[in-house]
Amino acid sequence: MSDASARLSPRDAAAPAGGRDLLVRNTTVLVHAEEGIRFDEHQDVVVRDGVIVAVEPTAGAEIAAGSEAEVIDGRGRLVMPGFINCHSHAPMVMFRGVAEDVPAERWFNELIWPMEVNLTPDDVELATRLAAAEMIRAGVTTFADHYFSMDRIAKVTAETGLRGVLGDTFFSTDGPAGLQRSLDFALEWRGAAEGRITTALAPHAPYTVADEDLAATARTAIEHELLVHVHASESREQTRHSLERTGLTPIQVLERSGLLEARTLIAHGIGVVPDDVPALRSAAEAGRVGFGSAPKGYLKHGFATTPARLLAAAGVPVGLATDGAASNNTLDVWESMTYFALVQKATEADPSHLTARAVLDHATTQSAAAVGLAGVVGQVAPGYRADLLVVDLGAPRLQPIHDLAAALVYSGRSDDIVSTIVDGRVLMRDRELLTVGVEAIVAELQPRLARLTDRSHGTSIQDYQA
Amino acid sequence: MSDASARLSPRDAAAPAGGRDLLVRNTTVLVHAEEGIRFDEHQDVVVRDGVIVAVEPTAGAEIAAGSEAEVIDGRGRLVMPGFINCHSHAPMVMFRGVAEDVPAERWFNELIWPMEVNLTPDDVELATRLAAAEMIRAGVTTFADHYFSMDRIAKVTAETGLRGVLGDTFFSTDGPAGLQRSLDFALEWRGAAEGRITTALAPHAPYTVADEDLAATARTAIEHELLVHVHASESREQTRHSLERTGLTPIQVLERSGLLEARTLIAHGIGVVPDDVPALRSAAEAGRVGFGSAPKGYLKHGFATTPARLLAAAGVPVGLATDGAASNNTLDVWESMTYFALVQKATEADPSHLTARAVLDHATTQSAAAVGLAGVVGQVAPGYRADLLVVDLGAPRLQPIHDLAAALVYSGRSDDIVSTIVDGRVLMRDRELLTVGVEAIVAELQPRLARLTDRSHGTSIQDYQA
Repeated sequence: MSDASARLSPRDAAAPAGGRDLLVRNTTVLVHAEEGIRFDEHQDVVVRDGVIVAVEPTAGAEIAAGSEAEVIDGRGRLVMPGFINCHSHAPMVMFRGVAEDVPAERWFNELIWPMEVNLTPDDVELATRLAAAEMIRAGVTTFADHYFSMDRIAKVTAETGLRGVLGDTFFSTDGPAGLQRSLDFALEWRGAAEGRITTALAPHAPYTVADEDLAATARTAIEHELLVHVHASESREQTRHSLERTGLTPIQVLERSGLLEARTLIAHGIGVVPDDVPALRSAAEAGRVGFGSAPKGYLKHGFATTPARLLAAAGVPVGLATDGAASNNTLDVWESMTYFALVQKATEADPSHLTARAVLDHATTQSAAAVGLAGVVGQVAPGYRADLLVVDLGAPRLQPIHDLAAALVYSGRSDDIVSTIVDGRVLMRDRELLTVGVEAIVAELQPRLARLTDRSHGTSIQDYQA
Repeated sequence: MSDASARLSPRDAAAPAGGRDLLVRNTTVLVHAEEGIRFDEHQDVVVRDGVIVAVEPTAGAEIAAGSEAEVIDGRGRLVMPGFINCHSHAPMVMFRGVAEDVPAERWFNELIWPMEVNLTPDDVELATRLAAAEMIRAGVTTFADHYFSMDRIAKVTAETGLRGVLGDTFFSTDGPAGLQRSLDFALEWRGAAEGRITTALAPHAPYTVADEDLAATARTAIEHELLVHVHASESREQTRHSLERTGLTPIQVLERSGLLEARTLIAHGIGVVPDDVPALRSAAEAGRVGFGSAPKGYLKHGFATTPARLLAAAGVPVGLATDGAASNNTLDVWESMTYFALVQKATEADPSHLTARAVLDHATTQSAAAVGLAGVVGQVAPGYRADLLVVDLGAPRLQPIHDLAAALVYSGRSDDIVSTIVDGRVLMRDRELLTVGVEAIVAELQPRLARLTDRSHGTSIQDYQA
């Protein structure tokens, strides 16, 4: 990072205007029933002060006299929970398409890490605005982000109305200041944006953060009751190398550091092996561990995928993610859901594995649990925050609908979303973004691209050795 | 098929109204240059009487006085060739979502083939209208279809303005009447719909059509200069079983029957092995063979994928396809393109394999060659039929554009298409379908679904034994 301008605080962040009372009338609702996911027709969804207060048969719901509630016609539409991006690097949209068709080592060492030297906090803020536009259009209502200049990302989160689980990235090469900076951010911004921002400590990975720093992170996280968000076991090769170097898998390295005693969100976990299961199982029983899986980028890089069946057997929640757009190219969790479904079946060579309903559970309840928001978001049910999508079911590729779960997972697409709502606030109405514009951002980003992608300086923020 | 109402002839098919002269002004164009695919900015694309007559720098093109040419503003947009669906069963959209999360044997024997007993020609026609709507929205301008009641599919092709490579499916259980019916259709409809319909003989597969019937098909195809469209080598298991039973791979069975002496479009080819290469190589050198690959459904069914690298080394064109929506769930070839790119990289465990530009070549030139339309469609170049897409590049998930090929393949989507044009006729303008409505079709289809999916009759059109 070439610029060290003063960090922002939550006071600098403005909230978008708009009501937080809402009624979606006469709609189909994705419901988490005890027996599994089901779809109830002819329902009204009633939101007050950002919270879902009722989901009830149509004609029951009344809007209080004098209320300024927005009313959305739900006919021919579905209301479902907003998507939760369990692992992203939002500002990396600025590098979308600059590092294509190359192996991971070249991606890191020759392209992305040298380019990240060029970033200023202003670049991060601007790129995050573009990412926010993309995510709101894609129906992502919560994103768990891991990057630099996280205060700027938090500012954009506050302004655009998204929900964020935000962690400021550090490496051991940052020295003790790295963890301290990550902690300062986490404490300062926790609960900001009217509670939409929760925070995490964000060590990069076991291969870039030394054991003693991981241990310090674990102690700090437990002391301050903070989530830890970390990359680990990103490929089978990493597990092999870790075993060669230390005799431990990356997950066992996390365990030894004490991180599985804190609440930890692990990105990727492709290299998780059966030996990791005992430690993960006990952490999961205590609600202390979850994974974020970003299957599209794994295909693109020729990796295997997160072993979801193994993790499910251990009771570990596996949420859906996109990673950054420099590898995944999109920040669309609906797309991740479809890839997750298909790639898990292909990997297991078992088409009956992971039904469409099971995949929807990963996209909702399990994703919420993975980012530490179980019971807060991920369901359309009374008491949950009103993070909702209104989905049009009229596209020819969805019709006829024999099975709505299959329609959503196998032929649905985020382009079917007409409205995106966070905390009862409409961020996209009839496909129109209300809290962020795209054209002006792109126009402002364009002249920066040459500087951002310059690698003539010959330096890099890290050296990748899996 | 429960109904044998009189077959249609080309005379029964109406053509859609609309001009065939067109100018897209000041646009970016996907160009097939000698060195590969490239993007030229600030171009005018000029269409006269359904043919591209010029692609030239903006300001050059003039519209003849008195012409009723439609003018499309190309700024911020890309003009690219329409997608070619190299293998589809369009009417199967009626079964979208009824056979989910099951292995191939159950899919065929317990679900789809028993349901196909219920089909009437009217059902096929109605469902094809829905499929046409979906394909036009997805930017599919040509589809190579393989199904029953093909005259009805041809009628819808004529009416909706699509281009079709159409073949009437037969099994050996149909007796000699099967091939005769397929031939009658092919001869009667070849060149119909102002030349937009070309035809094929359509034996189902080596495991449902006996060797002597395949041989008769080959002789008939050569005599009448017809394409043959056939499923073969659909999985590695099929190749194994074929070797066990006959000592020959499915491709060798086709070769022995003489089909590689005709022009043959092979669906799937997942089980192609190195032993198949010599025969495929010589057929490809004579322009007589191509494949259609539908990677999304392969993942879903836990299959491997078409060995594109092996086929490329043999010079065999591999086009993109969707198969039917009962397995693939969508008829969107743009989506197939993205899956093809990612799955090929994953299968080869080589992220540098198959660059975005190479994938665009599969989607255009190779797809056109596979369906027998090389030099006719698949390029935006003078002399080619004007099967064009106008793509908006403004979506946040495409921006910023460092590399337009990567943007199209890895983050683009058919939802970015604003207009779909076939033979110079606009079939979708600003996302509005001009030749087919969706709501009325769905309303008409809905009450038929219970009858169509009934399996209480206990019969089936075939028995699947890979």
